[in-house]
Amino acid sequence: MIIDGLTVPTLLIDETRCRANLQKMVEKAKRHGMRLRPHFKTHQSLAVGRWMREQGISHATVSSLRMAEYFAQEWSDITVAFPVNVHEMDRINALASQVNLGLVVESVEALVHLQKNLQCLVQVWVKVDSGYHRTGLSAENLNAIEEVLRAVNDNEHTALTGTLIHAGHSYDSVGKTEILAVHQQTLTAVSKMRSFFASKFPELKYSIGDTPSCSVAEDFEGVDEIRPGNFVFYDVMQQFIGSCTAQQIAVCLAVPVVAFHPERDEVVVYGGGVHLSKDRTFYTDGTTCFGSVVPLTNENWGNPMKDVWVKKLSQEHGILHVPASLQSEWKLGGWVGILPVHSCLTADLMGGYRDLNGNWLDHMMAHNTFALT
Amino acid sequence: MIIDGLTVPTLLIDETRCRANLQKMVEKAKRHGMRLRPHFKTHQSLAVGRWMREQGISHATVSSLRMAEYFAQEWSDITVAFPVNVHEMDRINALASQVNLGLVVESVEALVHLQKNLQCLVQVWVKVDSGYHRTGLSAENLNAIEEVLRAVNDNEHTALTGTLIHAGHSYDSVGKTEILAVHQQTLTAVSKMRSFFASKFPELKYSIGDTPSCSVAEDFEGVDEIRPGNFVFYDVMQQFIGSCTAQQIAVCLAVPVVAFHPERDEVVVYGGGVHLSKDRTFYTDGTTCFGSVVPLTNENWGNPMKDVWVKKLSQEHGILHVPASLQSEWKLGGWVGILPVHSCLTADLMGGYRDLNGNWLDHMMAHNTFALT
Repeated sequence: MIIDGLTVPTLLIDETRCRANLQKMVEKAKRHGMRLRPHFKTHQSLAVGRWMREQGISHATVSSLRMAEYFAQEWSDITVAFPVNVHEMDRINALASQVNLGLVVESVEALVHLQKNLQCLVQVWVKVDSGYHRTGLSAENLNAIEEVLRAVNDNEHTALTGTLIHAGHSYDSVGKTEILAVHQQTLTAVSKMRSFFASKFPELKYSIGDTPSCSVAEDFEGVDEIRPGNFVFYDVMQQFIGSCTAQQIAVCLAVPVVAFHPERDEVVVYGGGVHLSKDRTFYTDGTTCFGSVVPLTNENWGNPMKDVWVKKLSQEHGILHVPASLQSEWKLGGWVGILPVHSCLTADLMGGYRDLNGNWLDHMMAHNTFALT
Repeated sequence: MIIDGLTVPTLLIDETRCRANLQKMVEKAKRHGMRLRPHFKTHQSLAVGRWMREQGISHATVSSLRMAEYFAQEWSDITVAFPVNVHEMDRINALASQVNLGLVVESVEALVHLQKNLQCLVQVWVKVDSGYHRTGLSAENLNAIEEVLRAVNDNEHTALTGTLIHAGHSYDSVGKTEILAVHQQTLTAVSKMRSFFASKFPELKYSIGDTPSCSVAEDFEGVDEIRPGNFVFYDVMQQFIGSCTAQQIAVCLAVPVVAFHPERDEVVVYGGGVHLSKDRTFYTDGTTCFGSVVPLTNENWGNPMKDVWVKKLSQEHGILHVPASLQSEWKLGGWVGILPVHSCLTADLMGGYRDLNGNWLDHMMAHNTFALT
């Protein structure tokens, strides 16, 4: 039984589903002649990283230097896909002496700071914004991009590598058509840059990588590298967007029932915002959803239950909508599974996974803490 | 300088503001002849607990057995204000042999399980719902409450202690009038129970405790104990509700600036959902707010900046609204402070505090992880 020995909220991982998600993306990258450099911020686990390596993956993306340090134990080519933080030069230099380190810049100012303080060679990616508007230089502004590219190329410690796009606005999509419209923006941006920079920077690589686009698209014209992260586990948000099915979701929070309230169609479980995060998504009718609810069987978890969902979270409480008529089948202390809305944040909070055989898999958060860095 | 030596997002704590918040609540409890049993889930820190002890507090509330174990190192009277999880009897028995342990039940079924498996005496509180509708027996249903109270009293291992209310719907209030309306529901529930149970259970205690009510109310007729938690730090949500001023907020996330986007009035900082949590609140015009932004001075932080706020968070990025006209005063790598929307979750994620003199204060999350429990 996968619940044997459980006493508190526990994040289960299904290795089979996870490996299937990996394999699918590996095959897609191969089909299109692209490098797959998955984002490790979702799993943050050396163990899951080893499954990736077994499928031939040898390049990693991370979102912090701390995460790069953790993965540098076993990975030798790591891109930190976050604008350089000028206060972390010591860590950057230590890492750059150890692995092939990729960094992201989007201004000459940040680059100059980097170049003044670097002691080893790093790979530099210039961040480009194809429409998400979180950060990066506008893809429309080719001259501004060129200015930074030239400044990168001008220095012995910064190797010009490519431009890097994250079309995170695909997370606002619903359905394949909307996802592909966002992806088309990315491809257009790449195509324009390729033409503009073809003779000036013939070696320039083009890296893109949001999970929705990488999951549903089959056109990757001009793209050299993809960096999806969430696809390794997927989650309810990705399911609602249309990136995956509920059956592909590879992590599930097992929680025990602590109280029944049939008078308002509710069941209370031990599992709240400190376990799942308070990220949320919405059903098509506007109802807020903090997670789907699945039955736990002896060997695995099942499909999302009809008319049952996580409707509210406080710090440790999860409030499930469960019609009174169904509650007679539930019992106090019974276990159910919650498919998370945002698996990256749930994994980050839980700091570890238990596989379906009861073995623990590590997560970076179980090893060190912000307080000590 | 409070930022000396900082390189990554760091949760600052102002001991002076925190002690002032504590003192105010201690005085209020004294004034009304109530016991103050603060909820420690907000700070989760032995160090902050010691400040409480210095002000004469000797009773603790926590939200999990793990938290009870952590505080049992220094505290001898602890209530776990969460419906008993039937899977944790070993931990309950170990704790009950060590401290005066209070547990919460809301059904005869949970109680019977407890009584069958207890090896030591525990204090039992019966959870009552005065209108929040998260969990607990309806305050209207005095007979159902009586049934559980009688069952508690019937056993050598369960000492009947009282009823426990958490009017968490005060968090939906805006302003003192609305908070007091919620508080009045609580007082009415207490008053009705007092009359109904006066002769049957003359020793019964009445415990209540949401931060908004405890912060603004001055009528506590019939209340024996209060259990506010958030008041120790407060946060932007409490400020918007009307429980505190911005100046009373005692924790602040220091973050470095990593990119500027004056063309859309935005600045990007290193500080996202894995630091602040994705809890959010709203300005009166409906604008979403993930945190207020304050300047960091040599000695402290200042008041929230006008026209500047955290408008969006992703895993590690914070997107601040900063009018282009103000951005010339900011610089790459400059530090600003973010007052969290929900200080309990931010502290839980950060796992530690740095005081204004640069000393680190511990947090439970820095000591053990879910993966290992």
